[in-house]
Amino acid sequence: MAVYTEVGEADLAAFLSRYDLGQLLSYKGIAEGVENSNFLVRTERGTFILTLYEKRVNRADLPFFIGLLEHLADRGLSCPLPVQPVSGEALGELAGRPAALFTFLEGMWTRRPSAEQCGEVGRALADLHAKSGGFALTRANALSVGGWRPLYDGCGPEADKVSDGLLAEIGSELAFLEAHWPNGLPTGIIHADLFPDNVFFLRGRLSGLIDFYFACEDILAYDLAICLCAWCFELDGAFNITKGRALIEGYHSVRPLSDDELAALPILARGAALRFLLTRLYDWIHIPDTSLVTKKDPREYLRKLRFHAGVRTVADYGFQLGGEAA
Amino acid sequence: MAVYTEVGEADLAAFLSRYDLGQLLSYKGIAEGVENSNFLVRTERGTFILTLYEKRVNRADLPFFIGLLEHLADRGLSCPLPVQPVSGEALGELAGRPAALFTFLEGMWTRRPSAEQCGEVGRALADLHAKSGGFALTRANALSVGGWRPLYDGCGPEADKVSDGLLAEIGSELAFLEAHWPNGLPTGIIHADLFPDNVFFLRGRLSGLIDFYFACEDILAYDLAICLCAWCFELDGAFNITKGRALIEGYHSVRPLSDDELAALPILARGAALRFLLTRLYDWIHIPDTSLVTKKDPREYLRKLRFHAGVRTVADYGFQLGGEAA
Repeated sequence: MAVYTEVGEADLAAFLSRYDLGQLLSYKGIAEGVENSNFLVRTERGTFILTLYEKRVNRADLPFFIGLLEHLADRGLSCPLPVQPVSGEALGELAGRPAALFTFLEGMWTRRPSAEQCGEVGRALADLHAKSGGFALTRANALSVGGWRPLYDGCGPEADKVSDGLLAEIGSELAFLEAHWPNGLPTGIIHADLFPDNVFFLRGRLSGLIDFYFACEDILAYDLAICLCAWCFELDGAFNITKGRALIEGYHSVRPLSDDELAALPILARGAALRFLLTRLYDWIHIPDTSLVTKKDPREYLRKLRFHAGVRTVADYGFQLGGEAA
Repeated sequence: MAVYTEVGEADLAAFLSRYDLGQLLSYKGIAEGVENSNFLVRTERGTFILTLYEKRVNRADLPFFIGLLEHLADRGLSCPLPVQPVSGEALGELAGRPAALFTFLEGMWTRRPSAEQCGEVGRALADLHAKSGGFALTRANALSVGGWRPLYDGCGPEADKVSDGLLAEIGSELAFLEAHWPNGLPTGIIHADLFPDNVFFLRGRLSGLIDFYFACEDILAYDLAICLCAWCFELDGAFNITKGRALIEGYHSVRPLSDDELAALPILARGAALRFLLTRLYDWIHIPDTSLVTKKDPREYLRKLRFHAGVRTVADYGFQLGGEAA
């Protein structure tokens, strides 16, 4: 939950005066997002989300994030659309922070995704990849394979307090992934954090994607690998092959995966599991327990890493070429 | 800020099925309220506030709070109205907590009240007192004069770490107030916590009162005394006599204050300042710094206490009988 910055009515009204939205009626800080402060704002013209960018977000990245949402919404993807002021840029300033106003998306995220929902997520992800093509700006993925070793070094021997032998196990995985990370696969803009809390459903259908603040340029199939980690495991840690098949088939039906991409999926998923294991472990070790941030258990991703390390082909995820047409 | 309880979509949809509100469209936890978890809920029929009552609220008090809001809204006071289910009671259960749904009030609370706004608050408070008459239930004020000594005893010598000599000063104030607390003044249901964040304004007018979870039976003029503390001091600690006059005149114009009430106002305000000094001091000493709760500086109320202790008559608050007609 997150409202890091207090916003006064007069300041907000001044900020909104740049828009043609009628009078401000109410605003409430909402307990959503970890990096930024978010408010639900109601004016005479409707309901909006106001985001204040806090210091964990690099200001130099904001034109990329705002521009990407404009690019995607223009192409019909259901995501928060930055509202255009009558004059000036969508990115403004409020309470000393960069700030922008977005359209409000109805819908709820799902705590227990069904296989059908996994299929919808696969299709939406492929749609996002198709529509992000042609976007003029780019942003490197600081959390791709090249960014894992600094995190690993930053964890150090403390890792073994979380799980016996963890440091050595991660070290060996890391060396393997650095040596075998695929080259030459199609790249583009990926979401890079499409967990269930960033996908809304309404009346049984996917209604929108949110929180693009990890979006970056990377291997497209790596985004699908992240979703395999985020959507297809049960609470008891078991991989659900029905959900895996639905996710991959959904993606493949919109943006067909090449043989190379399919062959690389297990190692990409292994990398995705390591990436979330490392960031969770780093936070577990370095964020004080007294912080407002709820720390997530890294061991969940150790189990997922071990699972993916044992996968030989996409058939182990339930996917078979041509199977989706059967 | 406060969302203590996670609510899943299926549970919320089941809870809402008791109402005739159409389909659930979205819900967001909001950073408002300290005692309870609050969500902004949108359905096909509109926008609502969902409150889950957490353990700091006594369940036995809930029928009083819910019933009072129904009683007041029925009489035209602008406050959250508990939405009636098609069958059953407004007070239900969700995620293992007592829960109720309320109408959403547009408006914003003011960080810097003007004298005009103080006048509106005075009128709204008197209106609340008039309209709460005839409500069948009652609730004792655990934080009235009889409840202060246990708080004082619970602070103990730690108080002097907050301000030199504080324990002795409070002890002497407490003894004075216990000995001279007025008897025989009109009583009724009071709000007991009508601070600026509980009063909404919209288009320059007062649009509603919220957060009745300290409401109780007590001396009516004591509620006005609380507002004198909460609304009429500047950030630098100085009492603003223009705001004091506006507040009292506003109240008096709707529910005329008797000579006894006016004469008692200084001691009631002294008591109100001590009450907030004691609860803030108690929290300051007993709530760990690592808690999610933002602790408020008790010394603000020490300054207010000293001010009221030096007041002789309501003229010192800017009020003169007949003056409001001049």
